[in-house]
Amino acid sequence: MTIEEVETALIAIGRYFQARGWAPATAGNYSARLQDGRIAITVSGAHKGRLTSRDIMVLGSGHPGRPSAETALHLSIYQAFPEAGCVLHSHGAVLVALSRVLGDEWVIEGHELAKALPGVTSHDIRISVPIVENSQDMIEIEAAVMPRLGIVPAYLIRGHGIYGWGRDTAEAERVIEALEWLAEAELAERSLRACRD
Amino acid sequence: MTIEEVETALIAIGRYFQARGWAPATAGNYSARLQDGRIAITVSGAHKGRLTSRDIMVLGSGHPGRPSAETALHLSIYQAFPEAGCVLHSHGAVLVALSRVLGDEWVIEGHELAKALPGVTSHDIRISVPIVENSQDMIEIEAAVMPRLGIVPAYLIRGHGIYGWGRDTAEAERVIEALEWLAEAELAERSLRACRD
Amino acid sequence: MTIEEVETALIAIGRYFQARGWAPATAGNYSARLQDGRIAITVSGAHKGRLTSRDIMVLGSGHPGRPSAETALHLSIYQAFPEAGCVLHSHGAVLVALSRVLGDEWVIEGHELAKALPGVTSHDIRISVPIVENSQDMIEIEAAVMPRLGIVPAYLIRGHGIYGWGRDTAEAERVIEALEWLAEAELAERSLRACRD
Amino acid sequence: MTIEEVETALIAIGRYFQARGWAPATAGNYSARLQDGRIAITVSGAHKGRLTSRDIMVLGSGHPGRPSAETALHLSIYQAFPEAGCVLHSHGAVLVALSRVLGDEWVIEGHELAKALPGVTSHDIRISVPIVENSQDMIEIEAAVMPRLGIVPAYLIRGHGIYGWGRDTAEAERVIEALEWLAEAELAERSLRACRD
Repeated sequence: MTIEEVETALIAIGRYFQARGWAPATAGNYSARLQDGRIAITVSGAHKGRLTSRDIMVLGSGHPGRPSAETALHLSIYQAFPEAGCVLHSHGAVLVALSRVLGDEWVIEGHELAKALPGVTSHDIRISVPIVENSQDMIEIEAAVMPRLGIVPAYLIRGHGIYGWGRDTAEAERVIEALEWLAEAELAERSLRACRD
Repeated sequence: MTIEEVETALIAIGRYFQARGWAPATAGNYSARLQDGRIAITVSGAHKGRLTSRDIMVLGSGHPGRPSAETALHLSIYQAFPEAGCVLHSHGAVLVALSRVLGDEWVIEGHELAKALPGVTSHDIRISVPIVENSQDMIEIEAAVMPRLGIVPAYLIRGHGIYGWGRDTAEAERVIEALEWLAEAELAERSLRACRD
Repeated sequence: MTIEEVETALIAIGRYFQARGWAPATAGNYSARLQDGRIAITVSGAHKGRLTSRDIMVLGSGHPGRPSAETALHLSIYQAFPEAGCVLHSHGAVLVALSRVLGDEWVIEGHELAKALPGVTSHDIRISVPIVENSQDMIEIEAAVMPRLGIVPAYLIRGHGIYGWGRDTAEAERVIEALEWLAEAELAERSLRACRD
Repeated sequence: MTIEEVETALIAIGRYFQARGWAPATAGNYSARLQDGRIAITVSGAHKGRLTSRDIMVLGSGHPGRPSAETALHLSIYQAFPEAGCVLHSHGAVLVALSRVLGDEWVIEGHELAKALPGVTSHDIRISVPIVENSQDMIEIEAAVMPRLGIVPAYLIRGHGIYGWGRDTAEAERVIEALEWLAEAELAERSLRACRD
């Protein structure tokens, strides 16, 4: 993708995520790999529902902005997964609540929607999304999560949010959308089961 | 309906369902019967909130796209119900959660909104929506559901979503909207009953 | 209000209510009193989020449409309350669920938002909204509810929805919006209380 | 900020809050400090999703409108915090429900999103938001809350809503958005924990 295509795609994703409640109070950060291999990422503190091209900077380009404080987490994914073209970090309230309630993994079983995740071809398998502890030190988070990544291109940081990625911006958006939806379905299912009278 | 009318209607339905959260991560598929008897259906993998006329193909027309993987389920409904003009398949999180919690039917009683379903003229009856097991083999789903269809033009696939149909796109949309709403009302009712202090 | 002003106001209310989820699957009906005393009301079966002026008919005017099946409930309110200028009937899922869980009244206490209801000047009072049984016979509903109306310009029909009214369309809209919000607050409060660990 | 800039900002905030459900039935009020030190505030009873510049008055300017009934609460914040440039009062249903369930404080721990609040630099601290009793006498509320304000630029009034502030309209909006989101996360977390089978 060119920088112009990346800007257009990330601005649209920001508007969509913020409208869904997945980017509250400027939270979240989005990046993509350019065709020349460099990484473009949202600057620190930008309102995700009102991104402009000035809020998206190419790393190492002399852009006056400060890149997201979580840039290191994006870079570790691009390094580990050469086919990754886009990394998105969102903050849905239900998904964050789920990360506080579960142990060190989120198990998804029997959901057709899991097939929206790359590499999943049936509802009839057990999917595990890793959950790691939050830290203000990105190196700690990175060290905890990288050994645990499996088939699903995503992980949760407890009390913080979700990282998801894909070959391009559309696939990464689909990964986030599927997992935010699955968290809402988990909440609905538990609420329905809480009352059986 | 002409193909142009079908395209316009299905594109609008996709935007509406996606905004409601009933078409996450490209999930769902929509079809309609043309005035010449052929079936138009969304292609596999299209983003339902951003459908264009190129994402809607007439079966047997040489369209380069691949029809939805669930095309067989649409065709079985058109075959069984000659008056059906439109079939819609949606994926609301609450409705899918409900399909995982219930047994082999969803019973609706005492709801005025049930009158939005064709053939229902009073709140004061017992309505049953069949629930069948999910499968990656459409023939299995079809075999399970077809003998169980009754008055309500809809069925649930467990952990997957809902199929609903009607004489035209407006009626099919009304069926889906009524059942997604009834699932949300069921969740709210159970949550209210879970606490009585 | 002139018929043109009523059309503009009811079309806007329909769009707003439908976007909120309070007018699913064409449910609901809206009316207003014209300056000449006649009543304008939505026709039966119209999609509330897509109302046009053709979907709003003046009773007794020879309009080709069929007035809402619940017209009698609107007329009984205009007759009992000469100052009423607008009657709105909405169908929020949470509010309908609440009407199925409660007995014959909905008690609201300690809510500042109750002050959005005409005649309420403090949060520190006990407000009662009557709940009556649903029926396909409007005369039965009318007979049950009219003797029970008090200060609050609203009542619930069990498993069906809410009727609210006001001097003009803005006040009636405010009554509905306040009560739909209070139902959501009741659901949130009960869900929060269901878990205290 | 000039009065024109304040009008533009508060009108946009009103539209956003109302779309989110945080300004039901005209509830809430918003103010900002002008560059000449005077305070501009929304007039009493204005619909927050449809504010115009006529609904925003400069205190002491001879504007024909009546300022919000809660103007005294805004002024006490500007007096106590000379750096405050904007005060916002919102009414989310979940946050109001939370204020009815908790005691005299809302404790937030382990949430990355807390960093959206000015002065908070880590998720790993205990944040306390004061909750005071509601009253129709603003002097009572003011007397109860002012001694209890700490690091977080916000407080809750029980059964009523939240006050939040910041150096400018963007920061105050971020404070409100973060706390409304945190209330939704609290509700989701408790609902998830209510069922562990």
